[in-house]
Amino acid sequence: MRLIALLVALLPLACGAAVQQPNIWPLPQEYKLGTAVLTIPSTVAFSLSVDGSSGSSPLLDLAFERYRGIMFPLQQSNEKPLNPSVETVEVHVASTNEKLQLDTDESYTVQVSADAKIVIGAPTVFGALRGLETLSQMVEFDYDSQTYQLETAQIADHPRFAHRGLLVDTSRHFLPLPTLQRLLDSMSFAKLNVLHWHIVDNESFGVQSHSYPKLWQGAWSKRERYTQMDIASVVKLGLERGIRVMPEFDGPGHSYAWGVGYPQILPADFNAAGHCLPRTPGRDTDVPVDPSNPFVYELLEGLFGEMTGKARGKGLFPDDFFHIGGDEVQFDCWMHSAAISAFMAKQGWAPDSYDKLYMYFVQKSHAIASGFGRSAVVWEEVWNHFGTQLPKDTVVEIWKAHDVLVNVTAHGYRGILANSNDWYLDHLDTTWETFYANDPFQNITNPDQQKLVLGGEVCMWGETMDTSDLENTVWPRAAAGAERLWSSQSVTSTADALPRLRHFRCLLNRRGIAAAPVDVNGRGAPTGPNSCYAE
Amino acid sequence: MRLIALLVALLPLACGAAVQQPNIWPLPQEYKLGTAVLTIPSTVAFSLSVDGSSGSSPLLDLAFERYRGIMFPLQQSNEKPLNPSVETVEVHVASTNEKLQLDTDESYTVQVSADAKIVIGAPTVFGALRGLETLSQMVEFDYDSQTYQLETAQIADHPRFAHRGLLVDTSRHFLPLPTLQRLLDSMSFAKLNVLHWHIVDNESFGVQSHSYPKLWQGAWSKRERYTQMDIASVVKLGLERGIRVMPEFDGPGHSYAWGVGYPQILPADFNAAGHCLPRTPGRDTDVPVDPSNPFVYELLEGLFGEMTGKARGKGLFPDDFFHIGGDEVQFDCWMHSAAISAFMAKQGWAPDSYDKLYMYFVQKSHAIASGFGRSAVVWEEVWNHFGTQLPKDTVVEIWKAHDVLVNVTAHGYRGILANSNDWYLDHLDTTWETFYANDPFQNITNPDQQKLVLGGEVCMWGETMDTSDLENTVWPRAAAGAERLWSSQSVTSTADALPRLRHFRCLLNRRGIAAAPVDVNGRGAPTGPNSCYAE
Repeated sequence: MRLIALLVALLPLACGAAVQQPNIWPLPQEYKLGTAVLTIPSTVAFSLSVDGSSGSSPLLDLAFERYRGIMFPLQQSNEKPLNPSVETVEVHVASTNEKLQLDTDESYTVQVSADAKIVIGAPTVFGALRGLETLSQMVEFDYDSQTYQLETAQIADHPRFAHRGLLVDTSRHFLPLPTLQRLLDSMSFAKLNVLHWHIVDNESFGVQSHSYPKLWQGAWSKRERYTQMDIASVVKLGLERGIRVMPEFDGPGHSYAWGVGYPQILPADFNAAGHCLPRTPGRDTDVPVDPSNPFVYELLEGLFGEMTGKARGKGLFPDDFFHIGGDEVQFDCWMHSAAISAFMAKQGWAPDSYDKLYMYFVQKSHAIASGFGRSAVVWEEVWNHFGTQLPKDTVVEIWKAHDVLVNVTAHGYRGILANSNDWYLDHLDTTWETFYANDPFQNITNPDQQKLVLGGEVCMWGETMDTSDLENTVWPRAAAGAERLWSSQSVTSTADALPRLRHFRCLLNRRGIAAAPVDVNGRGAPTGPNSCYAE
Repeated sequence: MRLIALLVALLPLACGAAVQQPNIWPLPQEYKLGTAVLTIPSTVAFSLSVDGSSGSSPLLDLAFERYRGIMFPLQQSNEKPLNPSVETVEVHVASTNEKLQLDTDESYTVQVSADAKIVIGAPTVFGALRGLETLSQMVEFDYDSQTYQLETAQIADHPRFAHRGLLVDTSRHFLPLPTLQRLLDSMSFAKLNVLHWHIVDNESFGVQSHSYPKLWQGAWSKRERYTQMDIASVVKLGLERGIRVMPEFDGPGHSYAWGVGYPQILPADFNAAGHCLPRTPGRDTDVPVDPSNPFVYELLEGLFGEMTGKARGKGLFPDDFFHIGGDEVQFDCWMHSAAISAFMAKQGWAPDSYDKLYMYFVQKSHAIASGFGRSAVVWEEVWNHFGTQLPKDTVVEIWKAHDVLVNVTAHGYRGILANSNDWYLDHLDTTWETFYANDPFQNITNPDQQKLVLGGEVCMWGETMDTSDLENTVWPRAAAGAERLWSSQSVTSTADALPRLRHFRCLLNRRGIAAAPVDVNGRGAPTGPNSCYAE
C-alpha cells in the first residue's frame, strides 16, 4: 500500500518531455532530477525489507552481488569522499514471490535524496531488479576524486508493455552457454524481459530429450547440443534477471532436423521430383512433418511433456507461453506421400486441401501445449489461415505485416509484434530509428484492443549470426526496440534519444558487451578513430 | 632436476609430423597420444608440489580456480562414471618465483596416464599455467554420459620464441577494462605472452599521471581514461595469465593528444601554412613533439618514472621492455618553429637536418627508459635512420619490411617481427594462412643471429576497432600467429592446421570469445547456417 501511495505522489513531479532526459535507457516513465551529488562507495550495503519488515530473497541476494560488480567496475580511491556518502541502498518489496510470468508487476521507484539515502521500492522482486538496473545506470565513476557518484533524483517507473522480447535462433548456428548468459545479462540492462528461444529449426535439433533420445542426432555435431541441465541453467539465469524464457518448437514446418533421428516423422518421398523446395535434401530443405502420422503427436506429447513438466509453472520451461511455430509450411512437400493422400481421403478432404492438414496439426499441437497448462503462441500464418477458428487463448506473433496485429486484436486475440520490416535484427540495413519508430499501437486506438497487444520482440535470426557477431548485431538496435516497449508512448524523438542511445551503447561496452556504434547500420565497424560517445 | 630428466625422456616418444595431431592449439612440440579414456569430474582436486615438497603459489591457486571454470563449463551428471576417474591434477613446479620477464621458462609436461593420474610438471609457475591450458583443451564434455573425459597422452612442450605478443591500440578507440580483461583471457588460451599496450597516440591520451595531471585532458572524454589503478589491474591480470604487459609511449611522433594538456610540448606553429599534414589541426593531425624544448624531457622523466617505478621490475609496468615508439615522424611539422631553428643552429646542425633532431629525441627518451632499468623498444624507422648508432640494448620492432629483421640481427641487435603485410589484424584481407606462414626466421639461418629474434607480435590497430569488433577481428587470425611463435618451425601445413584451427575457434566461442569463422576473412560473418566446426 505504501508503494502505491508513493507512485501516485511522484506522478506530478516530472514529465518526460518537459525536463532534461537522464542517461537512463529505456527512459523511465516519470523522473525528477536533482542536482546534489552523493558519493556511493563500492562497499555500500544493500538491505531488503519485505512488506515493511526485514526479509530475504535469494533472487535479490544474487542481484545485489551482481549489481555491486556492475556498478563498481573500477577501483575507487580510499580517500575520504568530499560529498555525502551513501551507506545503504534500501530495497523495499511488498512480496518475495519469485514466480515470473506475463502479468508480473515490474513497476518500481528509485529515490536518491540529498540526505544520502537511496530507496528502491517495488511490489515484486522483479520490479526491484528493474530499479537496481536504473540505479546502476545513474552511478558514474568520477575520475577526479576516483569515487563513484550519483545525483539526487526521484523516479517512478513501469513498463508500457508486459512482453518485451528478443528472439534468438540457436538452430542456424549453435550458441554456447556463455554466449546465452551474456545475452541475458545484456537484455536485463535494457529491461527486456523475454528470451524467445528459437531452439530448433530445419538446420539442427540440438535439444536433449529423454523420451526421444535420438532427436538430438539432428544437432550440427556432438558438441553443439543443449543438455536439459544446460537449458535449466539458462532458464535459471533468466529468472535471476527477470527474464522469462519462452521456448519455440516450431511445427509442422521447418522440421528436417527432427527427422535425422526419427525419419518417420517426415513425409515419405518428401522431395520426390524436387517438389519440396528445389534443393538436394539436406539441412536447408524446408520440410514439414507428416501430420497424418500419429507418431508425430506421440513425439510432441513426450517432448512437450519433458519441456513443460506437464503442469503450469513447472518443467524446464516454466513460462506460461509455449511457442508452437506454425510458419512457412511448404505444402509441396506433402504432395508425394501416399500415406498423406490416404489420410486426407479418409477425413473426407479434397485432395489439395492441405490447409486442413495444416490446421489438423496446429490443433493437435496446441491441444498438447494446453494440456500442460500452456498458452500456445503461433506465428502469423496460423492466424492468416485459420483466424477465429483458433482457440481464444492463442497468442499470435506477427512477423509479416504490422497491421495483422490490428486484425488479431480486433477479434479479441492477443498479439505480439515482431514485424520483419522493422524489428528483424538480421536485416542489417534496418536502422535504429526504424526500430525506434515501430509502435505496437499503430492503428490501434481502442483501449480494449490495446490491452490485447502484449508487446513485441526484436528478432535475431541465425543464418549469418553466431557467437562472433551476435552482440554487435543485436546491440544497439535491440535497445531502440526495448525503449519503444518500455517507455511512454509519447517518447518518440530520435533527436532526444540519440545522445542517450550512444551513452547506453557505451555503457554496454563498459560492461563488456560488444555493442556496435550507433551511427553505423547493422553490425558495422567504427568508421574511424573516435570517442564511443560520439559515434 | 627431475623435471629436466622427464623432458629428455619424452623426446623420443613422439614426432609432430608422424602421428595424428591432437586438438591442441598451438600444437605442442612433443606429444604421444594414448587411447584410454578417463573421466575427470568437475570436483577434481588440484595439488601443488614445489621442488618435491608441498608448497603454495597464490598465482597457481588463482589459476586452479580459473581453469576449473574453463574446463567444466557445463553441469555434469551425478551418476557414477564408467571410466577410471581422475582424483587429482598434480602440479609440480621447481620454483614458485612469480616474476615474469622475457627469459621466463615456460616449458612444461603433461602426463595423463591410464591409471587415472594427471601430472603437470614445469620449472616455473608460468610453465605450469601453459600446462593447465593444454590440459584444459584436452578435456571434452561427453554428451552421452554427461561427464568430462580425456584421453591418455604424454606431452612435453616449450615455446619456440620467448616474445609472443599482441599489440592493442587503445588510443584510436578506448577499450574498457572488461574488454581488456577478456583479451588477456583469450590470449592465454593461445599461449600468447605479451600484451603490447599501445596506450596513447595522436588521437587520445587517456592515462593518468600524477606528476603531469593535465596529460589525460587529451582523452576522448572524461569516461575514456585509465586510472593508475586500472593499469595496475590490467598488469595484474596479465601476470596471473603469464602475460607480460609492455607499454608504449610513442614519441616524438603521434603526439597531438599530449599537447591538449601541455600545448608547449608541440612545436609552435606546427601547422603553419598547412605543412603538418594537410589537415585542420585536430586529433588526426600527426604532430611530433618539439625535441628542442627541455620541458619535453622533464615530462618524459616524470611520466616514465611513474610508469616504471624508477627501478627494474617495479612500477605500474614492471616489464623489462618499455616501448618508446619512434615511428612516422613528420618532419614538416618542425619547419615553422623559430625555437627549433634556433636550437638546431646552436647545435651546429644544418637547417634541414631534422634527422639529427629526431635522433636527439630518441637518445634522450632511450636514456630515460634505460635510467629506470628498462630496455627500450623502438619501431623500425629508428633503426632505418640510425642503425648501429643505437645503444646495443635497443630492441627493434619491424613493421614495414620483414627483411629488416635480417639486417637488425646481423648487426647484433635484438628484433621483434610485426610486419604489416602479414601480421596486422586491421588488414582485414590478410588471411589466416598468411598469418600462419610468416616465419620470423625467414632468411635468418645463423644460430647466433636467430637467438636475437625474440619473437613477434600480431597487431590490432584501433582505427576501425573497438569493443564491438575487437574479438572477431583478433580471432582466429591471431591464433595463426600464436602457433607460428610457439610451435616447432616444422609445423607449417595449413591443411593439417585447418581442422585444428576451426576446433580452436569453436573452443574460443565455447569460452565466450567472439572469434570469427575461420573460412571468412577479417571479421566476416558466417555465410550461412552451419556447424562451427565446419566454417
